[in-house]
Amino acid sequence: MQIQSSQKSFGGELQIWQHNSEVTKTPMRFAVYEPKKKETPRGALLWLSGLTCNEHNFVTKSGALEYLAHKNILLVCPDTSPRGLKLAGEHDSYDFGSGAGFYVNATTPGYGEHYRMYDYVVKELHDLLISNFQFHHDKLAISGHSMGGHGALIIGLKNPTKFKSVSAFSPIVNPMRAPWGQKAFHGYLGDDQVKWKEWDACELILAGKTRSDTILIDQGSNDEYLEKELLTKNFMEACEVKNQLLNCRFQDGYDHSYYFISTFIKQHIDFHFA
Amino acid sequence: MQIQSSQKSFGGELQIWQHNSEVTKTPMRFAVYEPKKKETPRGALLWLSGLTCNEHNFVTKSGALEYLAHKNILLVCPDTSPRGLKLAGEHDSYDFGSGAGFYVNATTPGYGEHYRMYDYVVKELHDLLISNFQFHHDKLAISGHSMGGHGALIIGLKNPTKFKSVSAFSPIVNPMRAPWGQKAFHGYLGDDQVKWKEWDACELILAGKTRSDTILIDQGSNDEYLEKELLTKNFMEACEVKNQLLNCRFQDGYDHSYYFISTFIKQHIDFHFA
Repeated sequence: MQIQSSQKSFGGELQIWQHNSEVTKTPMRFAVYEPKKKETPRGALLWLSGLTCNEHNFVTKSGALEYLAHKNILLVCPDTSPRGLKLAGEHDSYDFGSGAGFYVNATTPGYGEHYRMYDYVVKELHDLLISNFQFHHDKLAISGHSMGGHGALIIGLKNPTKFKSVSAFSPIVNPMRAPWGQKAFHGYLGDDQVKWKEWDACELILAGKTRSDTILIDQGSNDEYLEKELLTKNFMEACEVKNQLLNCRFQDGYDHSYYFISTFIKQHIDFHFA
Repeated sequence: MQIQSSQKSFGGELQIWQHNSEVTKTPMRFAVYEPKKKETPRGALLWLSGLTCNEHNFVTKSGALEYLAHKNILLVCPDTSPRGLKLAGEHDSYDFGSGAGFYVNATTPGYGEHYRMYDYVVKELHDLLISNFQFHHDKLAISGHSMGGHGALIIGLKNPTKFKSVSAFSPIVNPMRAPWGQKAFHGYLGDDQVKWKEWDACELILAGKTRSDTILIDQGSNDEYLEKELLTKNFMEACEVKNQLLNCRFQDGYDHSYYFISTFIKQHIDFHFA
């Protein structure tokens, strides 16, 4: 694992790391914001970004570093897909392939050998963090935006002890029923929709994969993707059916952008690290 | 003047405006962040961005909107050059032409007809703001970064009453003596270096164009451009000679990036709007 860059911000260090991933069989990058060391026990926030993003978007646009420094929280932002490959169709559209890994373990030819972002995040990156960075291992939380909100939900539901709490901004909650998700799942998982269910937050809840803690979701009411792609209400209904505690807040007038995320990110940090 | 987009952030609105400029004879864009209306008198901050930037960089990366909303400060960020032209050499390099207007009034053939960013900012944009946005006209401050720090300094020194206070991050303080500035001044102003002096902050100070208030500068000590391009100490010496009040702070370990700006932007906002 090699450090690519380190920049001082709010007294701490924003670092870009690269390593050769055993899971994706490609180089992978992630950003870490490490606050200046304090004596208080340090929590860590794993942030998963959305379509077209890489390890930079959240640290550049969220405005969160000051509050993370203040609260002594380690931040980790992985890239959203393997890079440097030339798979069929990988670079043809913004919503499939590079920049659009969807945090699943692909099984289709070609993609199945590399696009294993679920195992990358949950196993390889998690272990790298434990081995290389100082934080309280019981205080690891997960959050994300849009495709990354989907990632945070499915990873949090499938790993209720590894991640102490889960939140999301504008998540794709029911990808099996939405064009973005259907395109991705066809390409990464094939045509058998039964196999899609283990990567769909609504289906996981309905299958009993619930958590004992409350999930926090913020969703802009003016989000252009709300009705067609995000389907927030389907998750509210699934949680209602299975008694999953959920605090889903529709924020009046906000859209899908980082201007929305930055407005409420402090509240998510407080939710994870009260 | 037409609004291109409006996005809600921290209760206010981030707007992108476009108009046909009489000064540059091109369409020009600027960003405005307008906090949710409050009864307290509203100040306004004019921010000038650096090389390669446009009207988006500061609002995306500075993390300043929350504090501007809290303090009820209007923010205005113009683009850094005219766009849509095809002048000789205009698009060949990052440090001249598009994205690199240097806030001067060009006089060379071709550029002299369009690259008049000084008049654009000081006259046309200023008048548009007065006519179209609510703020206390005696509370207009100016700041900027790198090339935009140079712009803030020369505009503030040449207009001591129009702008109530001046600050800068990592400014190019003595462009006549630095490669970026020399290239730009050759291209925009021609070979007569006597004419360069009215666009150089150090020369303006030495010619007696001082202000009665203190100028604030923050400069990262690890800035890769410090020794060759920024020449901060030349400005400190000029201010010393002419008794210009200056608070120039070298911030240990910080570089030239927005991770540096975001760390100290609140202190600049407090400097301008105590």
